[in-house]
Amino acid sequence: MAETATPVGILGASGYTGGELVRLLARHPRVIIDHVTSERYAGQPLTAAYPHLRAAGTLVCRPMAAAAAAAGRCPVVFCALPHLTSMKVIPDLLAAGCRVIDLSADYRLREAQNFATWYGKPHSSPDLLQEAVYGLPERHRGRIAAARLVANPGCYPTSVLLGIGPLLEAGLADPDLIVIDAKSGASGAGRAAQQGMLLSELHEGFKAYKVTGHRHIAEMEQELAGYAGRPVTIRFTPHLVPQVRGILSTCYLRPRQEVDLARWQGVLEERYAGEPFVTVLPPESLPATNEVRGSNGCVLALHQDVRTGWMVVLAVIDNLVKGAAGQAVQNLNLMMGWPETAGLDQLPLFP
Amino acid sequence: MAETATPVGILGASGYTGGELVRLLARHPRVIIDHVTSERYAGQPLTAAYPHLRAAGTLVCRPMAAAAAAAGRCPVVFCALPHLTSMKVIPDLLAAGCRVIDLSADYRLREAQNFATWYGKPHSSPDLLQEAVYGLPERHRGRIAAARLVANPGCYPTSVLLGIGPLLEAGLADPDLIVIDAKSGASGAGRAAQQGMLLSELHEGFKAYKVTGHRHIAEMEQELAGYAGRPVTIRFTPHLVPQVRGILSTCYLRPRQEVDLARWQGVLEERYAGEPFVTVLPPESLPATNEVRGSNGCVLALHQDVRTGWMVVLAVIDNLVKGAAGQAVQNLNLMMGWPETAGLDQLPLFP
Amino acid sequence: MAETATPVGILGASGYTGGELVRLLARHPRVIIDHVTSERYAGQPLTAAYPHLRAAGTLVCRPMAAAAAAAGRCPVVFCALPHLTSMKVIPDLLAAGCRVIDLSADYRLREAQNFATWYGKPHSSPDLLQEAVYGLPERHRGRIAAARLVANPGCYPTSVLLGIGPLLEAGLADPDLIVIDAKSGASGAGRAAQQGMLLSELHEGFKAYKVTGHRHIAEMEQELAGYAGRPVTIRFTPHLVPQVRGILSTCYLRPRQEVDLARWQGVLEERYAGEPFVTVLPPESLPATNEVRGSNGCVLALHQDVRTGWMVVLAVIDNLVKGAAGQAVQNLNLMMGWPETAGLDQLPLFP
Amino acid sequence: MAETATPVGILGASGYTGGELVRLLARHPRVIIDHVTSERYAGQPLTAAYPHLRAAGTLVCRPMAAAAAAAGRCPVVFCALPHLTSMKVIPDLLAAGCRVIDLSADYRLREAQNFATWYGKPHSSPDLLQEAVYGLPERHRGRIAAARLVANPGCYPTSVLLGIGPLLEAGLADPDLIVIDAKSGASGAGRAAQQGMLLSELHEGFKAYKVTGHRHIAEMEQELAGYAGRPVTIRFTPHLVPQVRGILSTCYLRPRQEVDLARWQGVLEERYAGEPFVTVLPPESLPATNEVRGSNGCVLALHQDVRTGWMVVLAVIDNLVKGAAGQAVQNLNLMMGWPETAGLDQLPLFP
Repeated sequence: MAETATPVGILGASGYTGGELVRLLARHPRVIIDHVTSERYAGQPLTAAYPHLRAAGTLVCRPMAAAAAAAGRCPVVFCALPHLTSMKVIPDLLAAGCRVIDLSADYRLREAQNFATWYGKPHSSPDLLQEAVYGLPERHRGRIAAARLVANPGCYPTSVLLGIGPLLEAGLADPDLIVIDAKSGASGAGRAAQQGMLLSELHEGFKAYKVTGHRHIAEMEQELAGYAGRPVTIRFTPHLVPQVRGILSTCYLRPRQEVDLARWQGVLEERYAGEPFVTVLPPESLPATNEVRGSNGCVLALHQDVRTGWMVVLAVIDNLVKGAAGQAVQNLNLMMGWPETAGLDQLPLFP
Repeated sequence: MAETATPVGILGASGYTGGELVRLLARHPRVIIDHVTSERYAGQPLTAAYPHLRAAGTLVCRPMAAAAAAAGRCPVVFCALPHLTSMKVIPDLLAAGCRVIDLSADYRLREAQNFATWYGKPHSSPDLLQEAVYGLPERHRGRIAAARLVANPGCYPTSVLLGIGPLLEAGLADPDLIVIDAKSGASGAGRAAQQGMLLSELHEGFKAYKVTGHRHIAEMEQELAGYAGRPVTIRFTPHLVPQVRGILSTCYLRPRQEVDLARWQGVLEERYAGEPFVTVLPPESLPATNEVRGSNGCVLALHQDVRTGWMVVLAVIDNLVKGAAGQAVQNLNLMMGWPETAGLDQLPLFP
Repeated sequence: MAETATPVGILGASGYTGGELVRLLARHPRVIIDHVTSERYAGQPLTAAYPHLRAAGTLVCRPMAAAAAAAGRCPVVFCALPHLTSMKVIPDLLAAGCRVIDLSADYRLREAQNFATWYGKPHSSPDLLQEAVYGLPERHRGRIAAARLVANPGCYPTSVLLGIGPLLEAGLADPDLIVIDAKSGASGAGRAAQQGMLLSELHEGFKAYKVTGHRHIAEMEQELAGYAGRPVTIRFTPHLVPQVRGILSTCYLRPRQEVDLARWQGVLEERYAGEPFVTVLPPESLPATNEVRGSNGCVLALHQDVRTGWMVVLAVIDNLVKGAAGQAVQNLNLMMGWPETAGLDQLPLFP
Repeated sequence: MAETATPVGILGASGYTGGELVRLLARHPRVIIDHVTSERYAGQPLTAAYPHLRAAGTLVCRPMAAAAAAAGRCPVVFCALPHLTSMKVIPDLLAAGCRVIDLSADYRLREAQNFATWYGKPHSSPDLLQEAVYGLPERHRGRIAAARLVANPGCYPTSVLLGIGPLLEAGLADPDLIVIDAKSGASGAGRAAQQGMLLSELHEGFKAYKVTGHRHIAEMEQELAGYAGRPVTIRFTPHLVPQVRGILSTCYLRPRQEVDLARWQGVLEERYAGEPFVTVLPPESLPATNEVRGSNGCVLALHQDVRTGWMVVLAVIDNLVKGAAGQAVQNLNLMMGWPETAGLDQLPLFP
């Protein structure tokens, strides 16, 4: 492997997303992890942060400063730094000749004003927003392949866009009456110590949060507008499930005309025929989050409610894989011209 | 206590709802549990089914047949038998002079045809459907007090009706565009051994179920129509949360006119002023299911989404207490003319 | 109630133990909570820390300084402050005429040198160590009743002492070959935000901790020596269970002579006959932590391993109730001459 | 792959162990799954039992009868049938020329009398007991490679034997005073619907089970005697942890002479130097079950308790991988002369 392996860097390896990148990339057949960074664990072996990665080899965490030097030998760098931090380092990485897959939200919105509105600060490299490609492979495969900067989608948006985007594109659903009720495991909140994320607080403590104004709305509406060919507004509520991984988005759509279920189903099936990571179940199926845990899969199921006229799309993903690190690896594969499933063929872990 | 205590019977004590009735009634200041039944544990002490009830005294499970004889000395009997089984025994209990609080769904619907449609069998005592009172105390307090047969509401309906009923009554929300996305802990599925309810299957396995046609829709639409003064249709999706107790219903409403948040909030606050078990939080609050665990409380919070025009009501209850056994005890208190909170003053258990 | 209610104070109400004290004392028939303190939430309603305590009334958190003034009107004050902090305030409370129930470890050891060894600091009021009474009611009931300062036992020690103390007292077990393998839910680690206690870290992450040198060993060996009438050494391993409440201590004893199971069982049964909170199950029973959750109960079961000669005692408690706040209330009842079960008759919450 | 892939069969694919075999073997570089059996799902696609295996291809469950015919083309068959069922089919498979890896307990004990004692029935093919090789690769690698019938070890025994076997072999620990306190996630109980394994029953319900007489004792004592060169007796207590996967065995040993910690540590480190799946941590380390989840790893840590003289070995594995299916694949690799890690290089899934 060594001979042909491509070296990559991972910035921010001690967060959950960074750890997941290491898990996947350490077993990627064409990649060698050149360096990982973590301010908190700088100078320590990565296993100090993540004992489960013992078998991944002897990676040592470096400070960001050291990583900058290494960028020169890495054609691609993954940036798993927090929002607002990524944009401080990415321009330099690009300038050094790296291509970058950014797992933060910093380059997902195309309009600098939109970014400022949702993230509360002006963007520090607004010129790059137009260049960055929104890294949803099933939607922007071609542009990703050619991109210098890929903005890896948020976890909730991945589930929602895959689930309802094609139905909006086909003009089947009313773009003004979309309700998304989404649920995520606790790993989505990251590894920082917060009282509210303690096991004692969450166990038996299902709840909603950010009932209005979750920042993922911005990228969802931006991308959905692309599907629909016109502005789209979504009513979006995230909830915190007392489990670690997994997102289920329950998406409610109003049909624009009388529903032909076979047509709705057909739109999804045709759209995802040949897609290695998206499964469209038969209508009325009930996917569970543990069907995709640990894998890059997304599973969709359509339900028609004849009584009320609503259509419901259920979409499940593993928020750390298809919702973050796995999708980033999929983007890497596209950018390098490798098979899209390289390093992503693990089956889900159940039970 | 013995002198003035009122004897009550509990039919079906070995299910979760029955066990919860014993937990509450064994500490009720005006009640003595006269008998409990369980076919499965007939002849055994109740602690064979429920070791946690050791301190409740030496109750022995009896077969239904034996209980019939005891009915004569009990002014009130709780029926925690399965749907379709309750209606086989309740007419006889009424004939024996008992008043009955039925925790099954058998007498919740007023129309026999509606029952047959949703439960798949004709009702065996349709004449009682008109007499039975839907046991939501905050809605039907007066009629419950006088009732001979109280149909204790379903768990989901309790949360939904308390949460949005008054807003429909006030004419604020469109009765034709209601979306209810509800989530429940696993205890709602009962104690029967089912593969799908094993810890190994549910852990990390959030999912929706019965996406169309959950039977609780029938009673919700019936009661909501009462609030609204016209037919109401709801789009309802239940989900299974990997926790034991707790329901959170996320209710989406379309306002009929421009929203005055203070007015919406005022409707809820006024409606529940003085209600001992319903708390209306300030707008934008985020109640969690573990705020009410083990208690008869219901906590509501209203959110206005200015961006999309939707209003969101969050409602949490403990499905086994306010959603079942606690509400039944509240109904008992009303029927007996006791303080409504008698036996129901336990604070929630957290963490 | 107001007329005869005894005012009490609770120092450190925003920790889990403090919150549990409020839960229990707010429903105690002879108590009124006079004041609660919390530095972190000073000036805010207690419900800011603990929404589940809404129905406990309108308690406002005060700073410690304010509480000192209130001590004068409280015959008893509960101190739920951290170790090493309690001993800074308790001498003044005693000087103000309060009796104190201290839930920290500061006054559990009788020898100042022993304290310094295990807690790493000299004791600041060593003179009080001899006066303080170890608050295990089933062991020191009489002395507790008369005490000015009660040192409420640790959670693990409560389970272990109740489980094996009488067997050592009866001379049945070898005091030099005791192995205690104990397991606790996460609430035992308190409410402080720590990465290691996040749900994402603990879920599916059973592990041992402090395999040597857990501080509870000191009080266990001190008290077991009292039972045995000679020094006792225990091999003690605590483990962290991915649940919130509950301790199970699996205690391994070597018999000093041939085992007469009936005699072993008899020692436990006789010792706890009439004890309201300790249940001795028949031999070979298998108590689970959720049989006592939320209650002040302790459940014991004895197993004889004929094959290997070992005897095993299983002991379960709720670490926040019998292991902390409930036992403190039991001590209050003893100190005030009230029925020992006052305020402690809630049945466990299951499921 | 097709050209060189070796076809294998899996009997009993709808249990958790069978499902895990499919997960691993479907991604094994040298294997093709020829057939899977399940009486319950006969005729249905395997995804009816295990939706998470969708990406494993279109396997259809067959009845046992059909599988017998297929045995002829499979050099190796995995038998994941229940105890007492395996021995009914394995002699025929051997007669058909297959080599068999049996994941049940049927061929783990060498003495037929011992089997009858622990399993309550006479063995139906006692002649095979001497031939069968106990499939712990780190112990019996050479014999496994040549074996026709491999008895894959039990989950608890795998953790215990790897953890303490070498220390007994080195004569360091007293073989008559061993205490094993073991804890397992719920998946160890299998997928059968049992009331006691419901999420509602187990959540917050840590408990011991089979405190005396767990059947795994038999194989542990048999194998430990091999290490020690004399009979060994263990005091063994299994516990049920409210999580899905993972075993932690806390093993207490009495040293036979004064402890030289470096020597104890050295014995383990030397024994496992070069072993791909066993990690010996530095003394006083605290492995958690989620460090190995989903992987074939076993992690060991040694603790010296100077105060009491006891030595403690902590051993963690994933009960479904190193404790069952993963170890079976490791045995397959040995039997076929493939690299021992083939198909087993997945990193653990954390968080």
